[in-house]
Amino acid sequence: MSSTNDSLDAAQVASILARVAERRPRVHCLTNTVAQNLTANMLLAFGAVPSMASHPEEVAAVASGAGAILINLGTISPEGERAIPKLLEVARQRAIPLVLDPVFVELSPLRLKLADEVLRLPGVTVRGNATEMKALAAVMSGADAVLRVTTGKVDRIEGDGRVLAVSHGHELMTKVTGLGCASSALVAACRAVEPQADLAAAAALTAYGIAGEIAAERAEGPGSFAMHLIDALAGLDEATLAARMV
Amino acid sequence: MSSTNDSLDAAQVASILARVAERRPRVHCLTNTVAQNLTANMLLAFGAVPSMASHPEEVAAVASGAGAILINLGTISPEGERAIPKLLEVARQRAIPLVLDPVFVELSPLRLKLADEVLRLPGVTVRGNATEMKALAAVMSGADAVLRVTTGKVDRIEGDGRVLAVSHGHELMTKVTGLGCASSALVAACRAVEPQADLAAAAALTAYGIAGEIAAERAEGPGSFAMHLIDALAGLDEATLAARMV
Amino acid sequence: MSSTNDSLDAAQVASILARVAERRPRVHCLTNTVAQNLTANMLLAFGAVPSMASHPEEVAAVASGAGAILINLGTISPEGERAIPKLLEVARQRAIPLVLDPVFVELSPLRLKLADEVLRLPGVTVRGNATEMKALAAVMSGADAVLRVTTGKVDRIEGDGRVLAVSHGHELMTKVTGLGCASSALVAACRAVEPQADLAAAAALTAYGIAGEIAAERAEGPGSFAMHLIDALAGLDEATLAARMV
Repeated sequence: MSSTNDSLDAAQVASILARVAERRPRVHCLTNTVAQNLTANMLLAFGAVPSMASHPEEVAAVASGAGAILINLGTISPEGERAIPKLLEVARQRAIPLVLDPVFVELSPLRLKLADEVLRLPGVTVRGNATEMKALAAVMSGADAVLRVTTGKVDRIEGDGRVLAVSHGHELMTKVTGLGCASSALVAACRAVEPQADLAAAAALTAYGIAGEIAAERAEGPGSFAMHLIDALAGLDEATLAARMV
Repeated sequence: MSSTNDSLDAAQVASILARVAERRPRVHCLTNTVAQNLTANMLLAFGAVPSMASHPEEVAAVASGAGAILINLGTISPEGERAIPKLLEVARQRAIPLVLDPVFVELSPLRLKLADEVLRLPGVTVRGNATEMKALAAVMSGADAVLRVTTGKVDRIEGDGRVLAVSHGHELMTKVTGLGCASSALVAACRAVEPQADLAAAAALTAYGIAGEIAAERAEGPGSFAMHLIDALAGLDEATLAARMV
Repeated sequence: MSSTNDSLDAAQVASILARVAERRPRVHCLTNTVAQNLTANMLLAFGAVPSMASHPEEVAAVASGAGAILINLGTISPEGERAIPKLLEVARQRAIPLVLDPVFVELSPLRLKLADEVLRLPGVTVRGNATEMKALAAVMSGADAVLRVTTGKVDRIEGDGRVLAVSHGHELMTKVTGLGCASSALVAACRAVEPQADLAAAAALTAYGIAGEIAAERAEGPGSFAMHLIDALAGLDEATLAARMV
């Protein structure tokens, strides 16, 4: 693992965002019921299209045309558990990029087992906070070509051979439920249009973090912050990115 | 099918809305987990009362006192699937009007099968976008007394013998998840107090579209738009309707 | 039951809120999918930490480190039904305080049966509206050391030997879905740090009601009210409480 701290410039981020807006990839989300609504709205604000089926009998059909798949383990249900192998099979057969969000994996042996199952697929991007990533470290170490995305005050994106860092965002992002979950969906949306997984993740998190900074300037608390964050994400352009990425 | 394009006037819309506000019909919603919260809030803003049970063992009891029933196929679960026949039986026995929202039916053979099951009940109102309505056309053609409500830039309401058109709304309505789903619930609320299904649908969509126009004038993006839409819907009165329906 | 109407002063409420903010108790919520997101955001605004697992195979593991447990019967699912005995066992073994929210119990024999099951645990706090509390009265009368919290225009908190009344809030609180459900989670958060269950409930409802009054002054309808309520709750301090509790 290189320790180089590379980072993207505004033009690279804007280029990936422009491809999302133009191609409008559908991101199929098997995600928790707490974050579903916010996740869908963030994807729409980004220019992507959400779909959310989880029924084991239809999830493969619905996901098969998606540009990326998100598996988020929060509020996993028995039916969601049965949907996971179907999604993995679709991802494998159709080479659809897959992002895993291991919510609270440190609290649940079941989630650890499911994460292990997901990580048998090569090339998965994992997005979690430091506690989650630590709890998943042993499982990830055996996975093939995994991209580790640890979000926090500084987001750290570690793949093969290089490390990217993203230093955008605002403390209010920890005061709204589901914002981490939604960031994983944005990573998936960028991955749908950008084959280099680390660049995709860095672009998504840079855009999200900058939208968070803008929203924090307008917010009077976590309730209004969430609303402004969606507005700011929908309104991002290259000039705004460039001005904030100095 | 007549090709006459009739439309309602503000007094007709206001009359139906006033009946909703006065009678406060309960709308029982078997709906997707992405849109549940927004759907409930739109119903409350409209003056109606939402209920959302889906457990097969209680759904009939909870729905039996409702003024209308909504079945929305988004994120349908195995338990929701088992709840559908119970809801159809209650609707049939108690003559409760039923609205079907066939979310993403074009992507899922399971949803097509479930929609077919629902449409064996006579007099169902179906509310979907053009893609969904097209995917469901064959099934609807065999249904008895179905009302087809196709929403889009212009909403088209087709029953027996007349067509109503509604030309209100705003492009931001496509940028917030669940707004289509919520519109189906408002159609159900109006249907609970108005026996003519096409007038009920037209009133709901006119009010919703006008609230959308008002919200768009206040919004800075899709996040604030959603909030203003709820406020605008709760604040609609006949004078506002009349001013916008010229 | 005494008929004394005691009430808290601002310093007592502020003291309980300060303990929540400092200890950041995790509140494990088995709650309905309509209110999950709002409930989690209210807990975060309060300084507490939400967790929401419901899968029968993980719910005990996730709940075991929580400071309080909430069981809310809205949209109860078959899997949620199976999670209830696991949560009761954890609560009993680890002496974790438990709050029950019997949503729409008057409409569902299944919910009445489940509430009865929960109330075999001693010391449960039940938070409901007048209709729900009436439907549950017979069951509660056989329960050991239950605290009855009936919310409405005036909230009434009845335990052994004294009655507390809270007269804060605003009519807009009835126009947003899930606000009652969220109040039960705040009661649970206070109970996690305050052994006297009635004081915990009174502190939570006083803070919530005052946040509602502040939000109502800023709102233009139920949509903006919900947002301002979260902001106001996050911004509450003792001076604000004292000024409103005169």
